[in-house]
Amino acid sequence: MSKLPVLEVFGPTIQGEGMVTGQKTMFVRTAGCDYACSWCDSAFTWDGSAKDGIKQMTPEQIWQSLKEAGGSRFSHVTISGGNPALYPQMGDFVRLLHEERIDVALETQGSRWQDWFVEVDDLTLSPKPPSSNMTADFEKLDLIVARLIDAGRQAHVSQKIVVFDEADYDFAKQAAKRYPQLDTYLQTGNPDVETADDEKLRTDLLSRYEALIDRVMADEEMNDVRVLPQLHTLLWGNMRGV
Amino acid sequence: MSKLPVLEVFGPTIQGEGMVTGQKTMFVRTAGCDYACSWCDSAFTWDGSAKDGIKQMTPEQIWQSLKEAGGSRFSHVTISGGNPALYPQMGDFVRLLHEERIDVALETQGSRWQDWFVEVDDLTLSPKPPSSNMTADFEKLDLIVARLIDAGRQAHVSQKIVVFDEADYDFAKQAAKRYPQLDTYLQTGNPDVETADDEKLRTDLLSRYEALIDRVMADEEMNDVRVLPQLHTLLWGNMRGV
Ligand code: SF4
Ligand code: SF4
Repeated sequence: MSKLPVLEVFGPTIQGEGMVTGQKTMFVRTAGCDYACSWCDSAFTWDGSAKDGIKQMTPEQIWQSLKEAGGSRFSHVTISGGNPALYPQMGDFVRLLHEERIDVALETQGSRWQDWFVEVDDLTLSPKPPSSNMTADFEKLDLIVARLIDAGRQAHVSQKIVVFDEADYDFAKQAAKRYPQLDTYLQTGNPDVETADDEKLRTDLLSRYEALIDRVMADEEMNDVRVLPQLHTLLWGNMRGV
Repeated sequence: MSKLPVLEVFGPTIQGEGMVTGQKTMFVRTAGCDYACSWCDSAFTWDGSAKDGIKQMTPEQIWQSLKEAGGSRFSHVTISGGNPALYPQMGDFVRLLHEERIDVALETQGSRWQDWFVEVDDLTLSPKPPSSNMTADFEKLDLIVARLIDAGRQAHVSQKIVVFDEADYDFAKQAAKRYPQLDTYLQTGNPDVETADDEKLRTDLLSRYEALIDRVMADEEMNDVRVLPQLHTLLWGNMRGV
């Protein structure tokens, strides 16, 4: 079976963000991204700094790593990146997990389609707002969303937008209007993905979260949305592997 | 139309807990509860302390109050208490909200059935654990869950258990096993529903949240659960009306 480039396998821990916030889950992090977001909190997956840690693994090998780390203490796996949607062969791994009766979550910025998207239990599309310095490809997203809706996957898909500033907020609004079929999650940006001062980061995150809530509550064009912080950052700061 | 005893109408704000955590919503709080939980954070709804604030309101009057408070800035209403499931006439209000194209969430401890349960979009059953000093009525809950499942409402119902201590945790486990059809949410208890020291409360809540996460992560009998804090308490402490 074809291999996948894996950087981390860890857990169980909670999913700290998005559509299954709080879910007990294992994480598999793939290497490689076609974006380079200014505030990427996983830049080590694509900036070369962790390239010696990348292992080319078959689905069966990843499953063995999951069992080693998590034992029998999980029924849910989150595939993260980087952009795990770079890999057509990911479908084999998703199917292996389903054979093991494991639910699968996956997040991608939505830069490309993969046929196995329709098999993911909790699929998060996270188009990147202006503060990332990337340009979201809405035509590609239109195609992705249309295919998922056509396949009856509405309940299994959401979009999540990180909001740092007013331009990001307008972007989130545009995305919410464009895809009313999807549940929309707004998420507070992490202003400092390097700091080890957890206390300051926590205070800063909560005040940003409150400001984002105020903004949404005042806006009659943003009613059917969910506004969430990153729970893992509130709890553990920028620590990796939790 | 028959009236409902209403104590508070406020919002929009976020739903701070449970199955639609983060959702932009209005709140309607009814008076009256058939329980008296030791750590109830809404004791004013049933202990007589706010009895002069109770208004007997028709569904149409509650709707007017919602529009006054929230204008056009909402599409979701959460009905809270006390125990809003005390009132058979609540169905009229739920239907009025649906006519206005508003989604409806409601939380009850599950001490009694109402036919309108099947019309609630996000129904949270929150059986009370031992630390509440109440005794959850699992036979009644069996009947409620069975009726909801029979009515095809699985995606619209969850159970949420507050966990303060080991006995509560065992109770949560029992509930999760008893109702595998329902999504199960574990929630950190608020250890001090009176304090105005938000900073201390926040620190205390986060360390309790982390301890609950650790407990769940170590337990292979508690895999398919979600563990959440109360976001509104992290943000605003014990303040009412936010
Ligand atoms: S798409 Fe995600 S992983 Fe890729 S650079 Fe942006 S934030 Fe980082
Ligand atoms: S059931 Fe809810 S409202 Fe009633 S006493 Fe218990 S916590 Fe308070």
